[in-house]
Amino acid sequence: MIETGARRREIDEVASELFHANGYAATSVRDIARALDIQGASLYAHVASKEDLLWAIVDRSASAFEHAADRAVDETGDADAVERLAALVEAHVEVVAADPERSSVFVTEWRHLSGGRRAVIAGRRDAYEARFRETIRDGVAVGAFRPTDPAIAATFILTALNGIATWYRPDGRLSPDRIADHYVELALRSLSEDHR
Amino acid sequence: MIETGARRREIDEVASELFHANGYAATSVRDIARALDIQGASLYAHVASKEDLLWAIVDRSASAFEHAADRAVDETGDADAVERLAALVEAHVEVVAADPERSSVFVTEWRHLSGGRRAVIAGRRDAYEARFRETIRDGVAVGAFRPTDPAIAATFILTALNGIATWYRPDGRLSPDRIADHYVELALRSLSEDHR
Repeated sequence: MIETGARRREIDEVASELFHANGYAATSVRDIARALDIQGASLYAHVASKEDLLWAIVDRSASAFEHAADRAVDETGDADAVERLAALVEAHVEVVAADPERSSVFVTEWRHLSGGRRAVIAGRRDAYEARFRETIRDGVAVGAFRPTDPAIAATFILTALNGIATWYRPDGRLSPDRIADHYVELALRSLSEDHR
Repeated sequence: MIETGARRREIDEVASELFHANGYAATSVRDIARALDIQGASLYAHVASKEDLLWAIVDRSASAFEHAADRAVDETGDADAVERLAALVEAHVEVVAADPERSSVFVTEWRHLSGGRRAVIAGRRDAYEARFRETIRDGVAVGAFRPTDPAIAATFILTALNGIATWYRPDGRLSPDRIADHYVELALRSLSEDHR
């Protein structure tokens, strides 16, 4: 069971900050305890290992992407592939912008999970990417998108979306809504039938 | 002066591998020496510090992207913005695919450089990105691309391009040429005037 109290949330936030700034492998439990101004031994009262912290962050981030995509697809109902892809892109931008640090740790550090946990996240990432692939495939099938390789197109769009975590600043010139509008437009057009 | 002999190239390759696998911050000079099966002291006969190794890798990778972009633009001559952007995208894919590990270290680890070196690379990255921005701006000005924010569009395309380093495998189903063809098409269409 993952502890969910306020103290544990604080620990996760500090861990996320340090994993983001220095990478998981370069961050020790002692670094995290020091940033929280507590003893390493006290930290171990809340978490069993450094990997448990990474797991909590990655698992929560994966869930945030999954739930946002679920909601996006539910809200579009029986809409066509174009609207569904727009909703998926918009949902992804919102999750990244709501917590760019955690999203960035999810995207870059999940590979440091060991064995079973790594396989679980690999599977969830693949299932998530499949929503994009299948939506593109559906759009191609009905002629809404040009014939293309759905896997490459999904990867192109998702890597651009994940890149937002590397440059987005809450105090920057672009609000999450403006970024979402631009990215929806760029993604839909990248699949569009007519070219100049 | 950066030493360029065979031994030094081998050191850079091993450092690049370890920085890629574990991150710069988590890799010690001792790790690199061990992977080379030499003593740490012998390694210091070739490099003054771990940061010098990162600098050598990042500097060489930045140069590879710059030279490829120069060549691409030279070869297209007075071609229009569409052809120039296609050439820039193709050149970028080639550099990433030629050494995905080093490209990945360049993209993710350059921020661990200190002070002046970090500023130099930030400037070179910005100048490189400006080629994409200006080409997009030129295309918009002559109506070849739809009116869009050139900075966002350039970032969208470049983060997707850099993402290739995270998934490309030399033994995978897609050759660098096929990836380049797809990415040129996706990038150009994302900026195209006509939408469905």
